[in-house]
Parts: sequence; C-alpha cells; structure tokens
Amino acid sequence: MSTDRNHTVKTELVADWETLQRIFIRPENEKVRATLVKYMEQILFGLHDFLMQHVGITEEVSLKKLADQFRESRISRHPSKRLADVISGLIEDVAPHAVNVASPYFVGHMTSAIPFFMVHLQTIVAALNQNVVKLETSKVVSVLEKQVLAKIHRVIFDKPDEFYDEHIQHPESALGNFVEDGTLANLTALWVARNSFFRPKPGFAGVEKEGMAAAFQAYEVERCVVMVSQLGHYSLEKAGGVLGIGNRNVLSIDVDSHSRMDMTHLKSAIRDIRKDPRKTKILAIVGIAGTTETGTVDPLPELAEICAEDDIHFHVDAAWGGPTLLSENHRSLLSGINLADSVTIDGHKQFYMPMTCGMVYFKDPCLMDTVAYYANYINRPGSVDLGIRSLVGSRAATSLILRSALNIMGTGGYALLIDHGIEMAQVLAEEIKRRELFQLVTPPELNILTYRIFPEGMRREWADGDAQSRKAVTQQVNQINLTVQRLQREAGKSFVSRTTLKRRGCEDIVVLRAVLMNPMTTMDILGEILDEQEKIFHDQIAPDDS
Amino acid sequence: MSTDRNHTVKTELVADWETLQRIFIRPENEKVRATLVKYMEQILFGLHDFLMQHVGITEEVSLKKLADQFRESRISRHPSKRLADVISGLIEDVAPHAVNVASPYFVGHMTSAIPFFMVHLQTIVAALNQNVVKLETSKVVSVLEKQVLAKIHRVIFDKPDEFYDEHIQHPESALGNFVEDGTLANLTALWVARNSFFRPKPGFAGVEKEGMAAAFQAYEVERCVVMVSQLGHYSLEKAGGVLGIGNRNVLSIDVDSHSRMDMTHLKSAIRDIRKDPRKTKILAIVGIAGTTETGTVDPLPELAEICAEDDIHFHVDAAWGGPTLLSENHRSLLSGINLADSVTIDGHKQFYMPMTCGMVYFKDPCLMDTVAYYANYINRPGSVDLGIRSLVGSRAATSLILRSALNIMGTGGYALLIDHGIEMAQVLAEEIKRRELFQLVTPPELNILTYRIFPEGMRREWADGDAQSRKAVTQQVNQINLTVQRLQREAGKSFVSRTTLKRRGCEDIVVLRAVLMNPMTTMDILGEILDEQEKIFHDQIAPDDS
Repeated sequence: MSTDRNHTVKTELVADWETLQRIFIRPENEKVRATLVKYMEQILFGLHDFLMQHVGITEEVSLKKLADQFRESRISRHPSKRLADVISGLIEDVAPHAVNVASPYFVGHMTSAIPFFMVHLQTIVAALNQNVVKLETSKVVSVLEKQVLAKIHRVIFDKPDEFYDEHIQHPESALGNFVEDGTLANLTALWVARNSFFRPKPGFAGVEKEGMAAAFQAYEVERCVVMVSQLGHYSLEKAGGVLGIGNRNVLSIDVDSHSRMDMTHLKSAIRDIRKDPRKTKILAIVGIAGTTETGTVDPLPELAEICAEDDIHFHVDAAWGGPTLLSENHRSLLSGINLADSVTIDGHKQFYMPMTCGMVYFKDPCLMDTVAYYANYINRPGSVDLGIRSLVGSRAATSLILRSALNIMGTGGYALLIDHGIEMAQVLAEEIKRRELFQLVTPPELNILTYRIFPEGMRREWADGDAQSRKAVTQQVNQINLTVQRLQREAGKSFVSRTTLKRRGCEDIVVLRAVLMNPMTTMDILGEILDEQEKIFHDQIAPDDS
Repeated sequence: MSTDRNHTVKTELVADWETLQRIFIRPENEKVRATLVKYMEQILFGLHDFLMQHVGITEEVSLKKLADQFRESRISRHPSKRLADVISGLIEDVAPHAVNVASPYFVGHMTSAIPFFMVHLQTIVAALNQNVVKLETSKVVSVLEKQVLAKIHRVIFDKPDEFYDEHIQHPESALGNFVEDGTLANLTALWVARNSFFRPKPGFAGVEKEGMAAAFQAYEVERCVVMVSQLGHYSLEKAGGVLGIGNRNVLSIDVDSHSRMDMTHLKSAIRDIRKDPRKTKILAIVGIAGTTETGTVDPLPELAEICAEDDIHFHVDAAWGGPTLLSENHRSLLSGINLADSVTIDGHKQFYMPMTCGMVYFKDPCLMDTVAYYANYINRPGSVDLGIRSLVGSRAATSLILRSALNIMGTGGYALLIDHGIEMAQVLAEEIKRRELFQLVTPPELNILTYRIFPEGMRREWADGDAQSRKAVTQQVNQINLTVQRLQREAGKSFVSRTTLKRRGCEDIVVLRAVLMNPMTTMDILGEILDEQEKIFHDQIAPDDS
C-alpha cells in the first residue's frame, strides 16, 4: 500500500492500519504529491508509447498463451504490489497486449482515438466520485446533467425556447437519461414503449406492476412485436428478450439495395400483422441512424409517418449516427429524427468520450413517468433525484465529461470530425472502385462502408454461372475474405473488421468493414491497408495468379 | 481547443482542423507535456481542497439558485472554453457545489472516500480506452477480466482448485459479469433465473425467444413471483417490472425484530402460494447480505435450504455486504452465501472503487447460457468475447481497477477497512444507547445502524398510551426526526441520512441512518454529529425543554 517508489530495499508488504489511512488522506507532503503526479505523467505518456506501430490484435495462439498468465484464482492476504509497481506493470505488461484502438490503422470498429483532454475529464469524474442516483450524493451534478440532456435533446428535437425553459430544470421532466451504453439505452426506450402501450386502465394496474401475461389479458392481445431492419443492432433483440416480449417478436424487416429498411416489406409486414388472427400489436418501430454494419440510415420521415398513423412508438437507434446532427454539411442525412418518440445516442462513439456513455432521449418529457420508481432512503417523489426515472441506480457523473467536451470543442469541432470521417469514407470508396481486385459492397452514407475482395476471374464465373455455380463462387469468395481479414489482423499492423451480410434471395456474403472516425487516418494510410490486403491475397491466397 | 494556458491575449476560440488534430496526437513537445501534467496536479490536489469542512448538502433554496445557472440549452458553435478554463471551472465553480462524499462527516450513504490510487487506476482505464464487449477491442483485458471474476467467485463460493482450473479461462464459462451497478446486477440475476425456469422444452423455444405470455402458456402458469424481505432494494422490484414479471409479483416478506427476513412469514407465504388456485410459481427467493436501510443479513442458510427443497433460484443481494467475506473476523456473518445460485456485489461500495462497478456472480458457470446473444460483427460463438453473456454491450475495463486494488490492498487491507466500519458502528451504537435523547432502532450487524431522537417525555407518553395516542406520538416523533435531519443537512457540516421503516402492526417510523465506511471517521467525529443533533433539537425544536 506504499505510494513511495524510492524503497530500494525490497521490504515485505503488509496491510496495516497506518498505511491504509494514509491512502485516504489528502497528501500534504510535497514529496508524496510529486510522486502521485509522476505516476500521472507515466500514465499520460507511458501508455501511449505502447504499440506505436501495431494495432495489437494478433493470432489466437497468442491469446491462449496470454490467458495462461491469468489463471491464478486466489487473492493474496498481504498486498502483493506497490502502487508504483502496479502502474508500471500495467504500462509494461498489460498495455502491450491490449488493443491499440487509437491507431489510425485501426479502422475496424466503432472505437477509436479520443482527444487527450478526455482522460483529464475522466480523472475529474473519478476524483469527485459523485453518485448521480440522487441529489444527496451529487447536488450540482444533478442539475448540470439535466442541462446537458437538454442540450442534446435540442440538437435532436429542436423544440422552441419555451419548451426548454419549462423542462430543462423541472424536477419531474425527463428529457433523457444517461446509461452505461447503447444497449441499455435501447432497452430503456423499448421499456418505456412497452409500458406506454400497456398502460394502466380501469381493472388493470399497468404492465410494469402486473407483468406481461396480465397485460396481454387486459388488452386482449396475444402477441406484441417490435419491427426493425435486418441490420438492427442485436441489443434490440436482447431488449425484446429481457422485457418479456420475446426476441423472436423483434421482427426483422428486409433492407433495400441501399441497406435501408425496405418500406414495401415493412408495409406488407404490417398488413400481415393486421390479418394475424393471433391479435398482434406493434409496440414500436425502430429506425436506425447509422447501422453497425453499413452505417446507413433508414428512411426516418416515412417511418415516422407510418408510426404516427397508427400511434406506434417510433424509436431511432442513433447510437452511431447521432452526432452527425452537429455537422451543418451532413445533418440532413438524419432528417426526420426529430419525429422520433425516443432516440439512442452513444457518447463513447462519435462524441469521442472514453468508455462508456450511453444516452436515451424522449421527445415527450413525461414519457419516462411510466418507468418511475421511488424509495424511502433516496429518490423521493418530487425531488430532482435522477435515479427516479432510470433503468440503472448508482451512476458516475459522465455528464461532466460531455458538457466539458462540448465547451472545448463547440459543435464546430465535432462537425469537423464528422465531416472528415464521411469524406474519408467517400475517398476510400473511390479508391476501392479504382482497384480491380476489390468490390465496393455498401457505399458509405455516413462514415462506414463494406467491400470485399472479388477477383476478376471469379466475378466472370459468377456472372456467367447458374444458381448453383454462383453459390459455389460466393462461398469461395467468402472464404478468401475471411482468410485475408484474419491474416491481416494477425499480422497486427492494421485492422479492418469483417461481417456477414444477408441479402434477400442470395447467398450470405462475407465483407470487410471499415469505420472511419479517427482524424489521424489519412488516405495514405487507407491506401497502405488496401495494399496489404492485395499483397496478402497475391502472396498467400492466390500465388499462382501473380 | 487549445491546451496552452499561457495565452495572455484573449484570442477568439475557433474550431479548426489543425488544433483539432493536435488534441488527438501524443504530444512530443515538452512544454505541452508539462501543461498536461500540471492539469493533473490541479485535478489531484485542487479538487480535494473544496469543502474541507463541509459535506456540502445545503438547503433546497440554494439548489433552485444553482439550477438557474444551468438553464442554457444551446451548444455554441465555436469552442467556448479552453481546457485550462474548463478544468479550473470544474474545480472552482462546480466542485464546491458538489457533495463532499469523502468527508468523514458524511456518514449517510453508501458513498465515501476512496483511496487516492483509485483515481490513477481510473485514469489508466480511460487512457487505454478498451471496450470489453469483444476481444477485438480489448484482447488481454478480456482474459484479465475472467481472472478477476474467478477471484471474487472464489471468495464467494470457494469451489475447489479443479473447478477454477477448468473455468477460469474457458471461453464458454461465465463465472460472473461486470455491469454498471447493483441494480443491473440484480436485474441480470433475475433475468437468468427467469430464463432458467421457463427454459426451452418440446414445443416451446424458451421465454427469451417467445416472451412471458407464451411461457406462461407453455408451463401452465398463471403468475410467477419473486420473494424478498421488505427491506429489499428497490432495484428488485424494478427488475420484476422490466422482466415482465410485474413488480407487484416481487413479494415483500416481513422482517423479524432483527430486521431479517421472517422465516415463519416466508414459509406461510410459500404455503399460500401453493394453495393459490392461480397456479403461481416461485421464480426466485432473494436473501439480502447487508440491507440498504439497516445493514442486516437475512438467514442465508435457511433460505438456501428452502430454495434447494423446491429447486428455486436463490439469489443473494450482497451489493453492500459482499466484501465482508474478506474479513476473517466477520465473514461468518455471511455464511450460507456459498449456497446461492447468484450473488450481486458492488465494487463502488465496499471495494472502495470509483463510480461505478456492479458485479453479478453465478455458482454454475453455464447458467448464463440462458442469456447468450451472438452477432456477426462481434461476439461470435465459441470466442472469449465477453459481450456474449452480458446485459450490457460496450463496457469499460473496470476489472483493471479491481484487480490492481486487490494487488495493492490484499485481502488484509480490505479486511482492516471492513473491521473498522463494523467496530465504529458498534461504538456508535453504544454511544447512542448512552445518550438519553436517542433510541437505537436497529443495532448494527454490519456497519449500518438506524436510530432516532425519542425524547424521554414522549417515550413515557407512548408507553402509557392507547393505540390512538401511540399513533399520535409516533407521528410527532417522526416529524422531529425529519426536521432535525433536514436542519443538520442544511447546516452542511455533517450528513446522516433518513429513511422510513415499516414494522408489522405498528406505525411507520422515521429513523436516522448512519453508514460507517470511511476509515477517517472516528468516534470523536461521530460524537460531534450526535452533539449537533442534540443541539438542533434543543435549540430549534424544543427550546422550551432546555
């Protein structure tokens, strides 16, 4: 428990009361202060030295070896390490085997470099250690959080001044909620949608109180469903499972050739449901603003219209695409989002916040009343206690980070990042089209695209073939892409992810997926990544062709 | 977006690409590095200067005034503040209005001082910014997390070596899960319990797929319930609501005179359910190891026996009390916890971690298979991707903090903290009994107790009175305690919380609640807190008596 690194003699570490107390006291001693600051220096800069060149996702064999170092399941009675050794251990032994998500060569997932100041802001949150579940452990942070929620609410819904004047600090208004991540934000939205649908009425106390089976009886329903495109995030299915709706009742609607929800298919699915003798109700329709796999945006205005007609809850999963609203150049891609009843946005994605920050917003500030809970010791009715309308209880003051980041960056700063990502995706798409080994599968709408290796010979074979030979070619091409992606990942210099796209009436296809969000990723780097894929293909997959 | 604090001329802040890129780059420039470190120094020590004396929960009027400072709902286009100004703003303007949960005079909630090194560890987590949802964005952290889960699993369940050898790094074993907080840990446990009960069988694909109404049909059930003592945390009720069980089906069982679940009442409730013509099934029984309000522990061995007899899922909510297992002196208070099917523990409570870290553990490492989800782009079957069996998706590498803390503290260090809290609660109880103005309501079992002001005259009045006058006295006493607690909180020097305890056949009583977890809290401080309450009572409530 010593914080003093200058012990040269290796003394035995023991847990004793005096040392223990010291770690809780504000250090007045200049030497101890200097040591604590020195550790921060190591953390700030030492960590960033790891894996300068490599993204660090290597072969599975190395993972097994790595796992072997983490097989001890006992905790030692006495301290086994000093703080100094723990920090250097993390920097020297752990970090080099972590994934260098900050590398501009890491363009495979929705995790990227974050601005330096985010680390400082996270440190402030830890040092203050407020718990936003209630006013008595957060005070100013509770009202600050309400402001931040209103700011993002305004970006999404753009209500008039009077609306925000009324609700921004109203104890009983909930413009939104912070929660661990997008999965729980989607869960919260569908929880609210479920409870709004099966609301209390004479003889029925509401689904939250009585449960799903009783709700079905009270409303004479035999099945309820949620509709989302086949590219919906798996958290929506999971929410269906958790909420007692049943995940098979989260219906998958086909996408059109632009990877957007196919309106014809949606309408026919709705017609089928109306004809369903099992008395099926639609709880919610979900539009996606930036699908995980292709980055595409569903036709939000049309979805809003369909929902409005039948009074269906319209949720938009903008976990990825939400911050695009800050870009004057590209916000129109999300038009119609203001018509949603609820919207999911992730802070740790395109707000470039540290892991994690999920958010869910509601157009109607009373909608969360359907999920309100009170407790005697905290969260008393009528108070500003934020835990009253929240899936989660104890929570960190993540809003401090977002608020500060908005001050430091301005919408203009975020807009530059968003614009850069979209522009990079466009130039990458052009480059892919220019290279004959590749096929662009889903062109970028936001800053995500998918493509695949599709050698000229196999393309011809596919074009000329019958159904069966096309299937065989596709399987072969899939295998090539699987292998190239794996070999590139194992080489550890760069990382592009892969996924499998389903297309109506066709064989599933394996694609490579690039997510362009790191401002340090340039076209030169993207060129190198494609070069490497070409080289892997020519050297290791089809050496005879070259 | 400038990180340079030495601008003496107030230049206009604009969002431009060059500055923007700079905030993402590892600074090589010594001057910039020094500035970033200086900010950390401000954060580490500046923040701790706030409110040296006061806990900072002041009157509601000040809250309204405070809220008025957070009414702007627009985000400015250009950066409005430099990082330096944001940090000093947080330190000078925000922190003084936050709650000083680290004060040894703050003994009202389960939030307290944390060791200094926790802030460093949280900073490391932010700087690495791994996402533990999948291996491809976390690598070593995924196997490290599995190890930490096994270590705590062993503390709870104490299985033999072979068990941990087999499961610690097995990709398909889930010994537990990290999640945002205890609320979500309890939700996860009941989710698993629900799905295990309504598991797939011929003609039924399981409740997760088909939903609650279909599950009821398939299992010929008309209602299912969860049982917990009346002191159960409100998150259990909320879980019942979320999961489609209905929160009124989370049945509240009376407590005995020791604030533990009354076994006679439980058994009779179970008998009633068996007689219920509505075909009711018991999904789970929850034992509490450290209730939020009184810190008491339910009779876990007896609960385990009842559950085992009828094959009922036995969940223990040890969000608060779990780490007591690390104390050789007091772990016997939790005996029987190893018989649970699932256990909730919070890291941000008695592991003294920063906000937040919830955990849920399962005795059977296959139980979480009932909640497994896969996705093409991440979380592929058979992989170590931790997101497969998890309520939440994206998650921070919180396990790094717990692992490091266990290394730095040893079980011995934690044991000292636990022992100190329990000892302080005992001496505070003695002091309360010694002072005639006070009545000890629930003596401490762990480190929480409740008491109230109950002036001698009113005690006699109550003892001699009939039912109606007793009711009147109790209401009067309740009002006194409400007022004293409020006035003490508003004075801002110390903080004791209050709650309302329900007792069978009696009027609800308002009690003061002390949570003793801060190692800097001494008996002298506790004496001052009681003195202040006496003074408030004599000066402001009953000045005529003195």
